[in-house]
Amino acid sequence: MHITNSKFVKKHMTTLGLGLALLLAAQQVIAGTIIDVSQYGVTKNDGSDSTYQIRKILEMAKQQGATKIVFPKGKYDFYPDRAMQKNVYISNNDPGVKRIIFPLDGFENLEIDGQGSDFMFHGGVNPFVLEDGKNIKFSHFSVDFKRSFHSEASVLATGDGYLDIHIPEAFPYKINTAGILTFVGLQDSPPGKILIPKLERRIAVDNASDYQFKRLLEFDAKLRETAYMRKDIQTGNGLPAEKLPGDRNVRIFQKDLVATVGNIMTFQAKYRKYPGFVVSDSSDVVLDNITIHHAGGMGLLAQRSHNVTMQNSKVTPSEGRYVSTTADATHFVNCTGKIQLLNNLFENQKDDATNIHGIYVAVDKILDAKTIDVRLQHPQQYGFDFIDAGDTLELVHAPSMNTYSTAKVASSERISEEITRVVFQDKFDSRLQEGDSIAEVRDYAEVLIKGNTIRRNRARGMLLNSRGKTVVEDNYFHAPGSAILFEGDANFWYEQGGVSQAIIRNNVFDNSFYAQWGTGIIAVAAGIDNKYKESSRYNKNILIENNTFKVFDYAPILNLFSVDGLVFKNNVIEKNSAYPARAKYKHLFVVNHSDAVSIEKDNTFVGFEKSKEELTKFSTSL
Amino acid sequence: MHITNSKFVKKHMTTLGLGLALLLAAQQVIAGTIIDVSQYGVTKNDGSDSTYQIRKILEMAKQQGATKIVFPKGKYDFYPDRAMQKNVYISNNDPGVKRIIFPLDGFENLEIDGQGSDFMFHGGVNPFVLEDGKNIKFSHFSVDFKRSFHSEASVLATGDGYLDIHIPEAFPYKINTAGILTFVGLQDSPPGKILIPKLERRIAVDNASDYQFKRLLEFDAKLRETAYMRKDIQTGNGLPAEKLPGDRNVRIFQKDLVATVGNIMTFQAKYRKYPGFVVSDSSDVVLDNITIHHAGGMGLLAQRSHNVTMQNSKVTPSEGRYVSTTADATHFVNCTGKIQLLNNLFENQKDDATNIHGIYVAVDKILDAKTIDVRLQHPQQYGFDFIDAGDTLELVHAPSMNTYSTAKVASSERISEEITRVVFQDKFDSRLQEGDSIAEVRDYAEVLIKGNTIRRNRARGMLLNSRGKTVVEDNYFHAPGSAILFEGDANFWYEQGGVSQAIIRNNVFDNSFYAQWGTGIIAVAAGIDNKYKESSRYNKNILIENNTFKVFDYAPILNLFSVDGLVFKNNVIEKNSAYPARAKYKHLFVVNHSDAVSIEKDNTFVGFEKSKEELTKFSTSL
Repeated sequence: MHITNSKFVKKHMTTLGLGLALLLAAQQVIAGTIIDVSQYGVTKNDGSDSTYQIRKILEMAKQQGATKIVFPKGKYDFYPDRAMQKNVYISNNDPGVKRIIFPLDGFENLEIDGQGSDFMFHGGVNPFVLEDGKNIKFSHFSVDFKRSFHSEASVLATGDGYLDIHIPEAFPYKINTAGILTFVGLQDSPPGKILIPKLERRIAVDNASDYQFKRLLEFDAKLRETAYMRKDIQTGNGLPAEKLPGDRNVRIFQKDLVATVGNIMTFQAKYRKYPGFVVSDSSDVVLDNITIHHAGGMGLLAQRSHNVTMQNSKVTPSEGRYVSTTADATHFVNCTGKIQLLNNLFENQKDDATNIHGIYVAVDKILDAKTIDVRLQHPQQYGFDFIDAGDTLELVHAPSMNTYSTAKVASSERISEEITRVVFQDKFDSRLQEGDSIAEVRDYAEVLIKGNTIRRNRARGMLLNSRGKTVVEDNYFHAPGSAILFEGDANFWYEQGGVSQAIIRNNVFDNSFYAQWGTGIIAVAAGIDNKYKESSRYNKNILIENNTFKVFDYAPILNLFSVDGLVFKNNVIEKNSAYPARAKYKHLFVVNHSDAVSIEKDNTFVGFEKSKEELTKFSTSL
Repeated sequence: MHITNSKFVKKHMTTLGLGLALLLAAQQVIAGTIIDVSQYGVTKNDGSDSTYQIRKILEMAKQQGATKIVFPKGKYDFYPDRAMQKNVYISNNDPGVKRIIFPLDGFENLEIDGQGSDFMFHGGVNPFVLEDGKNIKFSHFSVDFKRSFHSEASVLATGDGYLDIHIPEAFPYKINTAGILTFVGLQDSPPGKILIPKLERRIAVDNASDYQFKRLLEFDAKLRETAYMRKDIQTGNGLPAEKLPGDRNVRIFQKDLVATVGNIMTFQAKYRKYPGFVVSDSSDVVLDNITIHHAGGMGLLAQRSHNVTMQNSKVTPSEGRYVSTTADATHFVNCTGKIQLLNNLFENQKDDATNIHGIYVAVDKILDAKTIDVRLQHPQQYGFDFIDAGDTLELVHAPSMNTYSTAKVASSERISEEITRVVFQDKFDSRLQEGDSIAEVRDYAEVLIKGNTIRRNRARGMLLNSRGKTVVEDNYFHAPGSAILFEGDANFWYEQGGVSQAIIRNNVFDNSFYAQWGTGIIAVAAGIDNKYKESSRYNKNILIENNTFKVFDYAPILNLFSVDGLVFKNNVIEKNSAYPARAKYKHLFVVNHSDAVSIEKDNTFVGFEKSKEELTKFSTSL
């Protein structure tokens, strides 16, 4: 229950109780602990809004201690109007009062079984928010949104400082009096709703903020992946535009616009408000056979949770779209126990397939020898609550990310979304100064990433930042940026990272890093200040073996700094011509400021012009 | 406590208790019930952030039952970082999680006495939010924001589809790669704050949403009022723009841009998130000798409160600005008892001086003969909670606004911010249908508006929509729109109105309605469908006597429809040439679909070309 609830909700819950009693009186209660939603007013395939009934059913399920909620296979629709509302803080997504379709607070031993159903969400809603749950399973259903939070258009023609695009009907837009293009919502209501036209227009305008964009990215229409070497074009929400002849054809202007005719220009969502599944302060959670076609944020975001598994699932766009989720497919923050990603497909999401990390806060103010104020730095982390009495915190020199001490918390006071006052049990290390960083020392999650396919997304494959044992095996990577990145920084994202044991084996890296996110196929991007890179060894003990690397040029397979211990052994590296080679890359192994990095002799190189000896030489630059 | 609080807050409050104990142990507690903030770590005139100390002091004041909190005269600063946060629903302003500097929840018998101090607020904060208070007084201080939520610029030159403007440093802006102008926040931190440049930029970008605009309005630089006959120019947030030679000179483009060189173009705030004073579910509240220089929304918003007085106070811009509050100076929703506005100055606010009304909800769904779902229609009313067991509701035919029946509530269930399920004690009137409107029948507030000056604002003077006795006397009006408007509608704003007894006497109406908001100096603008105007008598029993009307042409002094009973007697109407006369206006008294409207013989007309008989003839059109 750390992501807050409100009196509003409590009031609601008591009145719900009343409603529920009526419902139970009016309907037959099914024996046992399995609830079939069709028995409680939920209808399929008719476009009606099932949101309110689901709230009632969840309340009943909790009271009965139901172990399973079953949806007979079909299509179910969920609208915002009658959704439960709650102020929630979801790390790495934008906070705020959310409309939650499946509010799952304090459930234990429950499976939600879709039996192959499709769940269609309408408007700005949060499909699943699980808090303080234990032993929860989601299985056999798909999640999609009628109107995606991003937009897409096909490129008809290009010119100096402009693009001509065609915007399909699925992505409603307007061009205002000043000639500025923005995107808006669908006029989208359940059958039978009374519409008051003036109001609907007004609400549509208000809802338009959900469809704001902040940058463009080109997708290759044939390969259905981000176009070769393209990167994000930063914009505001709104581009100067002119209507062109032809239905929904528009010319958009910005001096750095560039694209290939026939490709798809995607307008990337400005906000991350509507992640698909939120798992907060919960344990033993499984997503099995789930398809996430879309989410306005991450597909699965787990925070402060223990043992989370996603398996046999897909993040993949629905028919006709080039983009699935508008941010990472999965993301894990301050989790413990085991994190497992098994046999999933992660494709076309607008950011990494996963990122597993902790959170740093900055020392904002030293009040006395035992007391400090710490500050969450990144607005998307605001409200992330993690410092409690008894916790051990590590004290970190931010520019080097070196941990120089730890201290035990006596008490903490949450002052605001970003500020927490911490009183330590003893005087803290006298080296501590304002601007330093602090993170929780915990049972860092063990990570198993096995049997997944990662492709066609924006940015990177896997961001490995857990200090627990991390195994990445039997996966297929075709990411436009680094397939595997060791991240973490205390100057922008404030994400705690630094692996202590990572094993990367039996994977296929298929022409990853064909675009510009990252610096190599497997790379370090920790935010260590240049002058501290030599004194920092943030990532340790990495084994890379038995993998196949398919590459099309001499871009780095490894690009490392501040690493202590890496063995690259028994891998096969095959050169091909899938993409045009880039002249600027000349060395497969770029290593700086590191100890004990070795490229073993048993690696195999196929199709290269250069000798193995030459290929395996370390370089300190591209 | 209807505007919700959160577990977050409660957790905070308990830890505050601990912090408070420490504070009390460390500091001397003053005897008696007056707290001098300077005794508790609050310092003046040094730019430091007093937010956190004020939270502690308020908590202490509550525990001690303090009757007065005193600020020694000086300048005090308040920043968002350590403000209490709470999800609040403030009618006619935008809902959301607010950062509240003076969170006043459940106080009784308290005065906050500024002793002439100036309170400067920084960033997106809510100065005062009073909930469930009794007998509360605010006195002797001013409220201002370092960075206003609207922006202003002077007009350097004009051309076809563009304006050249100079934007003062007080209003930071940017022009992005696409050449679009938007406004941003100040880099504004208390002395000594550690700044992390990359992050500060990021946060500045996020905060930029607070400074969005939605339309432009020209102010006359000499008269410091909205320019003659100008109206709002609708825009998006962002205009195509080019940098011009000269510091902060910019050309902005939109085909309908028009202005006079030398005047001031104001960029009107898109959102209303930060009203100055919120009074919710409270009674006997007085603002005395308060100056509101600015607020990001209304100056004073009172909802569901009993006996609220604002006296000897000012809403007026601070030095150098043309605009004070970005919305109404004051606004009262579903209030009871007495509403008093006495001897105030209301100037340069971006909307009416006051609006006193109830709220309609629409019947969204009829569930059975006793049960309906009702829907708050206007997004800025979402979360407005007003239907409880035992309440009597009026059932209203929306297009005519005729009340055809009432019904008593057995129970209600709040489903979401906009939907409430209502079960009536008995079967409701069978005429009730989906789309009808419903409002609370209550002890409608008596209103006394006396001795105020209203001028230089955008839009209207007073919107009179209370069904309690309403007296407007001894005021000076110089509003660009209607000085007095009888509003109310059930198709857009969903504001319940309809006076039952209004007395308007001894006022000076000094060349009001010199621009285009409204249809006359005193006018009806109720949202009654044309085909129902004859069958509706929404406003009743209006006496207009002993006033002076200064007019510059034949625009309507009265423009009425659907009124039953209005007497216009013993007024003096003087014609002058303060503004250019407008040819389209030909009749001082326009009356349609009304009964018992009389212009008495004792009115005096001075300076007109036409005879009194001609002047006092009713017309049905302009």
